[in-house]
Amino acid sequence: MNGEVDEESSLVDINETAIFLNLSKAKVRKLIERNILRNNWGQYTNLIRFTKKVSHIEEGSVLNYSDANLEIIRGFPKIRRCLLLEPALKKNFSSVDEVAVEEKMNGYNVRAAQINGDIIAFTRGGLVCPYTTEKVNELIDPTFFEDYPNLILCAEMVGPDNPYVAKTCYDVNSLDFFVFDIREKNSGEPYPVKKRRETLEAYKIKQVNLFGYFKPKDAHKEITKIINEIGSEEREGVVVKDPEMILQPMKYTTSNSNCKDLEFGFKFYNDIGRDYLFSRVIREGFQAAEWNENNQKLKDRCYRVGSSILYPMVNTINSVGKNKKVTEDAQIKVTRLEVLDLFKQHLNRSGIEVHFEEPIPEEDGYIVKMKKLNKSTNDKTESIWLGDYW
Amino acid sequence: MNGEVDEESSLVDINETAIFLNLSKAKVRKLIERNILRNNWGQYTNLIRFTKKVSHIEEGSVLNYSDANLEIIRGFPKIRRCLLLEPALKKNFSSVDEVAVEEKMNGYNVRAAQINGDIIAFTRGGLVCPYTTEKVNELIDPTFFEDYPNLILCAEMVGPDNPYVAKTCYDVNSLDFFVFDIREKNSGEPYPVKKRRETLEAYKIKQVNLFGYFKPKDAHKEITKIINEIGSEEREGVVVKDPEMILQPMKYTTSNSNCKDLEFGFKFYNDIGRDYLFSRVIREGFQAAEWNENNQKLKDRCYRVGSSILYPMVNTINSVGKNKKVTEDAQIKVTRLEVLDLFKQHLNRSGIEVHFEEPIPEEDGYIVKMKKLNKSTNDKTESIWLGDYW
Repeated sequence: MNGEVDEESSLVDINETAIFLNLSKAKVRKLIERNILRNNWGQYTNLIRFTKKVSHIEEGSVLNYSDANLEIIRGFPKIRRCLLLEPALKKNFSSVDEVAVEEKMNGYNVRAAQINGDIIAFTRGGLVCPYTTEKVNELIDPTFFEDYPNLILCAEMVGPDNPYVAKTCYDVNSLDFFVFDIREKNSGEPYPVKKRRETLEAYKIKQVNLFGYFKPKDAHKEITKIINEIGSEEREGVVVKDPEMILQPMKYTTSNSNCKDLEFGFKFYNDIGRDYLFSRVIREGFQAAEWNENNQKLKDRCYRVGSSILYPMVNTINSVGKNKKVTEDAQIKVTRLEVLDLFKQHLNRSGIEVHFEEPIPEEDGYIVKMKKLNKSTNDKTESIWLGDYW
Repeated sequence: MNGEVDEESSLVDINETAIFLNLSKAKVRKLIERNILRNNWGQYTNLIRFTKKVSHIEEGSVLNYSDANLEIIRGFPKIRRCLLLEPALKKNFSSVDEVAVEEKMNGYNVRAAQINGDIIAFTRGGLVCPYTTEKVNELIDPTFFEDYPNLILCAEMVGPDNPYVAKTCYDVNSLDFFVFDIREKNSGEPYPVKKRRETLEAYKIKQVNLFGYFKPKDAHKEITKIINEIGSEEREGVVVKDPEMILQPMKYTTSNSNCKDLEFGFKFYNDIGRDYLFSRVIREGFQAAEWNENNQKLKDRCYRVGSSILYPMVNTINSVGKNKKVTEDAQIKVTRLEVLDLFKQHLNRSGIEVHFEEPIPEEDGYIVKMKKLNKSTNDKTESIWLGDYW
């Protein structure tokens, strides 16, 4: 969120907010002073987001001040990751008869809600994303929010026309919206899995795959099969849920996904690599141990991990050595050029530097290619080619 | 240095110290207040060490207060590491006609000096190490310090009877002392390479291998050959020096050494692995790029890196899963049991928890096996086997 500039001073009504959030007025004042409560820009200055977790309120939560009633869209809670499936299922899910296993898709997390009559899409951090907002309005049957103005659709934006995480492994042409949770405004209460799936089916709103319901004590075998299958298609992983959504869900990912993260991270080793590295190799180590891999399987995994780190890094070093900078390339597809302008402003205000190429007109909109320069990796590699130490 | 307790309050004479170090009296007072100047224990409370770098004085520097004159043993300066040999040689050494290339051995760094008539060995941090002090007194011809009371021998302690870094790749039976630098007390000025080598030869004091003197523009080819040769013997690397010791030296290590570090680090992935990981894979990536490795060489390196991370980690996870804790095992060999007691106190005061077994008598001393429990890795692995999240 660096580089972001607030357009207006905060519109927060301190009294009303303190009562609504059950915080003291002094605390609300502090949150404004410290810029933890921050307003959106453009036409959405009435939407104030939490840039940090504050007592019981998640980071990325959004307060809406312009409705008849003040309301809050809760930030999407972090899903815990398990490293050893069988023990984690036993410890965390033995109080339920069965668990629901759904797909964890690889895209970016958004929340769509109807705010003062408009359908708006929020990023994980609580910013209004103009690009996603356009997409969501094109993709979702608007009668859903007419019938349920009090609900929030929590979804993954997936597909190749993706400014953040472009993946071609899903059967998606441009960019699509896959719901994995329905939650209520204010309380943040989630719908049970069956109720959510039925509700969404009635409106033909897409949702993530449901692989099935399994007994907790058998689930690790089923999930292992699923993980191996979807891993071979470069898909990301699963989320294990209490069907009633009372217990906290947990996620588990494929080796392919861990390694793809490493590949991406080490193309930009000095921007992203460091943060990605340790957690991914830890996941690989625990998966290998739990699956009791024979020598050949483990050797394959060692090579997979090593080459996911070294190949992209060596390519980057060679490329910069030949004076060719490395960039992170993506594209979006907009219906209206006005949305492109808003999206550029959105990235700019989020402190993300991106170079956009000229829009390419298509039958049903414009493809816009974008390049993000990961400056630290380019600069560091160049300086080492010039003889600097690390 | 956690857990360390000072035996007496500081003996620092503030006036004298301020003049000697060319610092203000207020600054010296602050250094004492903040425990940055800290005294040794036991019979060496007169030796005060710098636990942090302070203006021009390196961390690990030691002030000696009990001599006729106050004197300082400078901390050993950090040697910069190069990632791409040829560019780093060009940038950093093109002002000299030739560079000296010596071996960087894998052990622990000590400084030996004569202090108030006794030969004493200091750790990198400036503590008196009782074990190393005994060894040094057994290994070095004492006439050296009689002739040169003003000199410091900077050396690597190498061999299997090594409490910190046990290596069997060198032709060393128990533990030996290999000098790589001679420096003067107070000024810290180093001897030129030839003068140092001749001086040490005269006293038959061992020193690190000298591979040769090379022209800076050819040195990368020679060093690459050396690195490949010594790497195949599991040796660590080289230090490139200005023969006059005016330019700062630089180090460069073998792939084998990087991978051995990873192996060690990932046996104890949650204690050591995280710190080791990023830097080692970065070194591997740059070496592969500079050596322009063909596909098979690079594939081998990928496997080497991946297996150095995963095999030890999977072994640790499996071992803890079978209720067998992982420990870091080492041994020392002392001539007098009194030294063992002092060494135990030394580790204890440095906050290192070690379990020592009963000494095993040998013809010429006692072998003492020691086990260090890396608690964080054992505890974390156990908790994950019990179903906890990361």
